Amino acid sequence: MSYDQIALPDVSGLSVGILGGTGPQGRGLAYRFARAGQRVLVGSRSAERGEQAAQELRELLESGPSGNQDEDSVTGGDNVHASQADIVIVAVPWDGHGATLAALAPHLSGRIVVDCVNPLGFDDKGPYPLRVEEGSAAEQAAALLPESRVCAAFHHVSAVLLADPAVAEVDLDVLVLGDDRDAALHVQALATRIAGMRGVFAGRLRNAGQIEAFTANLIAINKRYKAHAGIRVTDL
Amino acid sequence: MSYDQIALPDVSGLSVGILGGTGPQGRGLAYRFARAGQRVLVGSRSAERGEQAAQELRELLESGPSGNQDEDSVTGGDNVHASQADIVIVAVPWDGHGATLAALAPHLSGRIVVDCVNPLGFDDKGPYPLRVEEGSAAEQAAALLPESRVCAAFHHVSAVLLADPAVAEVDLDVLVLGDDRDAALHVQALATRIAGMRGVFAGRLRNAGQIEAFTANLIAINKRYKAHAGIRVTDL
Repeated sequence: MSYDQIALPDVSGLSVGILGGTGPQGRGLAYRFARAGQRVLVGSRSAERGEQAAQELRELLESGPSGNQDEDSVTGGDNVHASQADIVIVAVPWDGHGATLAALAPHLSGRIVVDCVNPLGFDDKGPYPLRVEEGSAAEQAAALLPESRVCAAFHHVSAVLLADPAVAEVDLDVLVLGDDRDAALHVQALATRIAGMRGVFAGRLRNAGQIEAFTANLIAINKRYKAHAGIRVTDL
Repeated sequence: MSYDQIALPDVSGLSVGILGGTGPQGRGLAYRFARAGQRVLVGSRSAERGEQAAQELRELLESGPSGNQDEDSVTGGDNVHASQADIVIVAVPWDGHGATLAALAPHLSGRIVVDCVNPLGFDDKGPYPLRVEEGSAAEQAAALLPESRVCAAFHHVSAVLLADPAVAEVDLDVLVLGDDRDAALHVQALATRIAGMRGVFAGRLRNAGQIEAFTANLIAINKRYKAHAGIRVTDL
């Protein structure tokens, strides 16, 4: 079946939680989902910082070209707060990824959890992928959250483009990985809620490592070409 | 600098050798480079099979919409024959990759060598990346060929599309990796010789592993969507 023939579920009524919602990636995703009309729960290690980020997002939405006029659509708190959402995105730093998820496991039980963490190191030659014992951040999440429906996605979206209200469409495909087909379809649908994006199924979780690591290549591309690069899948 | 502002060298006069030129990927690349007007040297473990593949390519070029009318533009032989080219593409199976390159090292000295090999395993769940001690096939090549200028590229091109004379343009970007900037620029230029392709610099060789492994994701995409998927880099 071609891309257009695979029916995606309606996720417009689902809430989206962001663990690590005060970082650039989490903040950018929170903004785009809220702008698309999703209810968003911003989480942080510190409830105060989570609330503050939510307040800043509400102000950004009120001042900008948002499809979301509901003041209550963005709330903030600690990561437990964000874990109450229907779909929970993991946007925490790799350092602390395992400990954060292990502590939240009871709260994330039964939920769709979307890991977008890229385990990268940096030295004087630039970025490079870190070796992860479980194979990838996503597989580490799956190992720590056996009661959750773990997918991986949103690795390659530029935080700069996400956060810029002047960018109307974010022109790229989101690669979605997962062993739970229904959960992956929901994540694909969630990606399409952001204007310009498609959600493309790109394999099982055991093939997530190279998608995470590919972010190092995008950083190299951005440096060489002064770009905010993403990818499109051709022939779809 | 933007993509268009980075000047690429003129490689139209350079010959292209293909190690493993009788496999689907090697054969498809040989066809496209010959069609673009490059002189092509097809190599195989067996000189007879290499000559036969070259003969078949010449017949295909004569019957099709080729820019290459020169009968001598495609020659075949063993892998030593192909190693005489200015730019030598490694398109051998992963199983045997190291042994083949080690034996050819003296012949490849000083040349630009382009590894396009994807170390993948397959089981009942589909493809998955194999762990490579050196980090990637390309880094293995670089370790075995210290006197060559090793790059990596052409991992994601569909052999089906390459080999189909009815396909006028192969719609994708070729990610080029390498630590030798001048060599990488030549490989980028070589990619642009195939109609529809761009050659995009995507980092150092130490970031080649995930590009090779990404082929497993493209196979998953092809299976799900009945496609011959490649990628385009956005914002370039």
